Amino acid sequence: MEFINKLTFNDDGLIPAIAQQYDTNEVLMMAWMNKASIEESLETGRVCYWSRSRQAFWRKGESSGQIQLLKEFRVDCDADTLLLLVDQTGPACHTGRRTCFYQVVTEKGELNIDSDPLIDPEELYKK
Amino acid sequence: MEFINKLTFNDDGLIPAIAQQYDTNEVLMMAWMNKASIEESLETGRVCYWSRSRQAFWRKGESSGQIQLLKEFRVDCDADTLLLLVDQTGPACHTGRRTCFYQVVTEKGELNIDSDPLIDPEELYKK
Repeated sequence: MEFINKLTFNDDGLIPAIAQQYDTNEVLMMAWMNKASIEESLETGRVCYWSRSRQAFWRKGESSGQIQLLKEFRVDCDADTLLLLVDQTGPACHTGRRTCFYQVVTEKGELNIDSDPLIDPEELYKK
Repeated sequence: MEFINKLTFNDDGLIPAIAQQYDTNEVLMMAWMNKASIEESLETGRVCYWSRSRQAFWRKGESSGQIQLLKEFRVDCDADTLLLLVDQTGPACHTGRRTCFYQVVTEKGELNIDSDPLIDPEELYKK
């Protein structure tokens, strides 16, 4: 996959990746990938990020069952940001909401939550 | 704007911001903001980023005329990524294309350009 050599990774070997639902164009989340997680995602067709907090592969949906199928893999003009068109099963967010971007800044400069969880997070992560 | 104190900035004082066209949901670009550029954007209604390469405010459209009007300012679940819903005049990309994400990875692992410039970049940046 020669395109990987054209990408600019940060000092930690990571590149930001935006996930967008391929048919509705909703922006679902932003996370980080390294070379190995990019290769795995393209090989398996299921999106795998790199978790900065856990310092480990983050196979989206591994614990929640809410997977992301990869439909299209895009690279920006500077090759330092990725746009993944995905088919997201259920909620993308660990709060159980469809998208992670559920907080909107109000005129008073406060954060207002404007969507509800699709699934209770306790339900999402129970064994 | 008390929400700014809830945001997580990186070691350089920056937070990534995704720009999405508010009515078509196209993802246009990803860039970085600091506290001052967030405040300016909300105060003026025109998006201002922080340019990492120039280490200066990057008032989108200042040299090209292709401004971004801010329609909605969103924050993700971890408060470490922003989603800006904007009304982009013409191309968002310095190549003259509507979006910066005009390269798609092919089955062979190569990059394929699948959109043309709306405006010649030389036209865009001439005085």
